Amino acid sequence: MQNAIEEALNCKEDVPIGCVIKKDGKIIARAHNKREEDNDVTAHAEILAIQEAQKALKTSRLNDCEMYVTLEPCPMCSWAILKSGIKTIYFGAYNPDYGVFISNPNCIPPKYLPLAIKVYGGIEEEKCGKILEDFFKKLR
Amino acid sequence: MQNAIEEALNCKEDVPIGCVIKKDGKIIARAHNKREEDNDVTAHAEILAIQEAQKALKTSRLNDCEMYVTLEPCPMCSWAILKSGIKTIYFGAYNPDYGVFISNPNCIPPKYLPLAIKVYGGIEEEKCGKILEDFFKKLR
Repeated sequence: MQNAIEEALNCKEDVPIGCVIKKDGKIIARAHNKREEDNDVTAHAEILAIQEAQKALKTSRLNDCEMYVTLEPCPMCSWAILKSGIKTIYFGAYNPDYGVFISNPNCIPPKYLPLAIKVYGGIEEEKCGKILEDFFKKLR
Repeated sequence: MQNAIEEALNCKEDVPIGCVIKKDGKIIARAHNKREEDNDVTAHAEILAIQEAQKALKTSRLNDCEMYVTLEPCPMCSWAILKSGIKTIYFGAYNPDYGVFISNPNCIPPKYLPLAIKVYGGIEEEKCGKILEDFFKKLR
């Protein structure tokens, strides 16, 4: 998670969210939120990290990978994760309004349930949450 | 929708799904599913069309745009659409298992409801469905 936090801190104008993907204990992709920087609503840290991991492994099947992300993924990213085959997710801060895996589990269409993955929330929660808090404080 | 159908027919190895985005009656983006072609689980027609529209308009705010897509969007694409600000969606075939807007509306987290958009399903449904049927028949 420390690497994901470092990625979050690389955000310039964007809400600081970072993500890394590991395979066999090695980081194969790292990305941070570039929604504002790239003027692209799809440029969330998780989407960019998945795209990078796919390139690194030359396949879209990320089944043996683990994701570490500083905030509970939004619905868009959650489905991308499910589709990628990633089976283990560690996230930092909870996202009560827009998080899917733990905060709004009813939002998973039943057909996705067989794809169930292991999700661990609250990893380095305080640190991950503080980065976001500090960002929004500055913004105000 | 005819333009979206033409896009769907441009798919090579991929499940044929096409999408166009219009603004002021003019097509500003068109794309087809490239999930297999690009080895990228995020390369759905809608995501690619949104990215193209953002580039064309040099903004991530697509509020005054309309989307035409041959299949009811999956959860990943649905959230991307909601985030993009597109307010009017026309889709062709229904997607009972993975469609969100009409087929699985309970999957929309409550916080997204204020962003409610107009969604019209079943536009040229037969044509859009037949392209998919033909593709899966060939595959078998």
